[in-house]
Amino acid sequence: MQRVKHIALIGAGLVGSLLAIYLRKRKYKVSVFERRPDMRKKGYEGGRSINLALSNRGIRALEEVGLASVLKQSAIPMHGRMIHDLKGNLNFQPYGKEGQYINSVSRGGLNQVLITEAEKLGVEFHFEKRIQHIDFDKTSISFQTSNLEPQTSNFDLIIGSDGAFSAARLSMQMTDRFDYQQDYIDHGYKELHIPATKGGEFQMEKNALHIWPRESYMLIALPNPDGSFTLTLFFPFEGEPSFAQLKTEPEVTHFFKTVFPDAYDLMPTLLKDFFHNPTSSLVTVKCFPWVKNNTLLIGDAAHAIVPFFGQGMNAGFEDVRELNALLDTYKDDWNHVLPAFQIQRKPNADAIAQLALDNFIEMRDLVNDPEFILRKKIEARLHQLYPSKWIPLYSMVTFQENIPYSVAYATGQKQKKIMEEVIKQPGVEKEWENLNFEAIVNKLSN
Amino acid sequence: MQRVKHIALIGAGLVGSLLAIYLRKRKYKVSVFERRPDMRKKGYEGGRSINLALSNRGIRALEEVGLASVLKQSAIPMHGRMIHDLKGNLNFQPYGKEGQYINSVSRGGLNQVLITEAEKLGVEFHFEKRIQHIDFDKTSISFQTSNLEPQTSNFDLIIGSDGAFSAARLSMQMTDRFDYQQDYIDHGYKELHIPATKGGEFQMEKNALHIWPRESYMLIALPNPDGSFTLTLFFPFEGEPSFAQLKTEPEVTHFFKTVFPDAYDLMPTLLKDFFHNPTSSLVTVKCFPWVKNNTLLIGDAAHAIVPFFGQGMNAGFEDVRELNALLDTYKDDWNHVLPAFQIQRKPNADAIAQLALDNFIEMRDLVNDPEFILRKKIEARLHQLYPSKWIPLYSMVTFQENIPYSVAYATGQKQKKIMEEVIKQPGVEKEWENLNFEAIVNKLSN
Repeated sequence: MQRVKHIALIGAGLVGSLLAIYLRKRKYKVSVFERRPDMRKKGYEGGRSINLALSNRGIRALEEVGLASVLKQSAIPMHGRMIHDLKGNLNFQPYGKEGQYINSVSRGGLNQVLITEAEKLGVEFHFEKRIQHIDFDKTSISFQTSNLEPQTSNFDLIIGSDGAFSAARLSMQMTDRFDYQQDYIDHGYKELHIPATKGGEFQMEKNALHIWPRESYMLIALPNPDGSFTLTLFFPFEGEPSFAQLKTEPEVTHFFKTVFPDAYDLMPTLLKDFFHNPTSSLVTVKCFPWVKNNTLLIGDAAHAIVPFFGQGMNAGFEDVRELNALLDTYKDDWNHVLPAFQIQRKPNADAIAQLALDNFIEMRDLVNDPEFILRKKIEARLHQLYPSKWIPLYSMVTFQENIPYSVAYATGQKQKKIMEEVIKQPGVEKEWENLNFEAIVNKLSN
Repeated sequence: MQRVKHIALIGAGLVGSLLAIYLRKRKYKVSVFERRPDMRKKGYEGGRSINLALSNRGIRALEEVGLASVLKQSAIPMHGRMIHDLKGNLNFQPYGKEGQYINSVSRGGLNQVLITEAEKLGVEFHFEKRIQHIDFDKTSISFQTSNLEPQTSNFDLIIGSDGAFSAARLSMQMTDRFDYQQDYIDHGYKELHIPATKGGEFQMEKNALHIWPRESYMLIALPNPDGSFTLTLFFPFEGEPSFAQLKTEPEVTHFFKTVFPDAYDLMPTLLKDFFHNPTSSLVTVKCFPWVKNNTLLIGDAAHAIVPFFGQGMNAGFEDVRELNALLDTYKDDWNHVLPAFQIQRKPNADAIAQLALDNFIEMRDLVNDPEFILRKKIEARLHQLYPSKWIPLYSMVTFQENIPYSVAYATGQKQKKIMEEVIKQPGVEKEWENLNFEAIVNKLSN
């Protein structure tokens, strides 16, 4: 590859906009092509969750370009899970130690800040510009136009940051020897709503991620700055119960009253929301290579995951930060950076993909399980006693941005095995405080 | 779905043409759309292996439409593997019992017979007709045309039989909740050639599939009716040795002389073939569902596999025969046939995909292994003593068309475990004839 001057980014979503900022700060000419209209003018065109959980990996990537403090102003800290049982009883499970929390942020708001920031730095944004095809030999993009003549532009480097349904990746899929995998889970999701009180107050605990775990499905709620909550129902498409079964207003009302009674009381627009909002699917995407000649895939375009660990955006932002670190290391020699990036990131992307799938089971089912709760307690104590030796899986992923996802995953597997033994011991539920914690921790280094 | 009268098949390859015959015999109006020119006029446009191993599953599907005898006339029986060692020594390993064999057939020849047969029955073939898009709600196909205006036609049912790189499947991939996976192996392949003698004689044993197994790679040869052999080198793309390493004529000559000395002596066009013929990749494709509204995927379009079990065409033909059987069962009610077909066939497609990958290791490496050869001997004896109870895996897949691939796979896994125990016994290599064969067989039913 010749010296890179002009970089095309496909997709002005969260990862594309942040990457544009990083690359512009390195003095590249950066052109971003986005198929949607400018969300700052036309409003956020949804379909995807309107709030996200920003945690340490994402924050660190924002910090490096001086944006973390701005964004944390409008973020709402969530210190743990607030579990709602069938009777509306609450049980709070902290995410980590005192002072550790994740942040509920608005996807649209964050995206707009990033686009505006990138523009200030001199990044060119081209909205309503849909790509048709990438020529990987020429490093050129053909764009769709209103007449049938496609328009083609050449670049030194192309980066596809265009999300789970990436057009850049689809172009790559048409080339030889591109491994690709898309897997949908049996559950879909639908967004619902709990408004603020008339006085603008939160109707439930503000600083928590609320979960109504019901084994085969769950409802969750994240707080918004205006006092409302955005709810998401994760629910099977088919079977019993399922979206396919809830066809009429009385059916929906009866279902929510029965299984989410306390939430139901706070949802005046339930029926409108349920029948008006789309039922969306959830996909995991894996592919390799991420690099074809002078074109790179990044973020969801390279590794879309299900949302249950709250790590999709954080993983994408970490991609950006690590790409930037490699540019430092190799002094902007992309011939080294591109292969190094995909080799370094792929195992971490695979790990967080699996962790996200596993965490769905934890959220919708295990959080209600006495054994799971006991295990969490024992692990919290282990972490307290040996803070650098035993870090619970959730904390490694969410709060320990220096631990790669792949290491967190492997360590988590080991911890799980050890804890399964511990939990089996007779009487442990009562006597757990008397466990030989040192012996348990030492098993981890064997 | 309303009553099906007019069916569009996409792709006039082996599976599409055979399916056209079956469907036309059921009185459907059948239109076949093929992107390539008519191979009967322009000659076979290759890229893919020009000969294939037709075995019992494929033969049975041909028999049911009265075509097996015609085709077997030009087929060459291969009774076993002829293993060539580094010094050119030969070792023959029969595929099954006396009288069991697979058939070397010409892909192009077989395809042409099927197309002509289908045409005779009244199937309409439209060549050089490339599909652009399927509308699954309207059961319509948009075709590419030389001007930019696509042409759209409606059908009662669409079946995509357009192979591993199916355009029909790509349209399906663009719809929601379609699981899809394409995985390339690290090896590519290249076709090479051993000519007949001037007198038209075979220069090696005619009735065998020749293998030069070299652990990480292999060369194979299949006989052609004109006395020549088509060779295929399965070889890593990268590494040592690999296609990437063999850059010059002296390198290729030296390599072949060293590792395939007896073949080298019979290959006057080696250098021309090596540098002229393409290096092709090998992919496994899995997807689900195979049905979207009134559109079905079949054959390689639904489940492309690597060629190492010689089952790609046979599996596709079996698809056709089983689809036809379901049409009998459900009296041509496609509303029942389509879901039943995919539920019944998917586990078998997954099983043969895995068996094909596993068999590469067997062909290129294990056939040289004394333990493997001993195991084969013991299994042959078991099969001889208990012909219906212990059927070696290769025989189940190749010669037992009534055993579904999924059952063959599961049984094979069980046999493998049992044989691993048997082979571990001290002295077994000398005393194997004195084994308690009945006890071994009985383990299979535990």
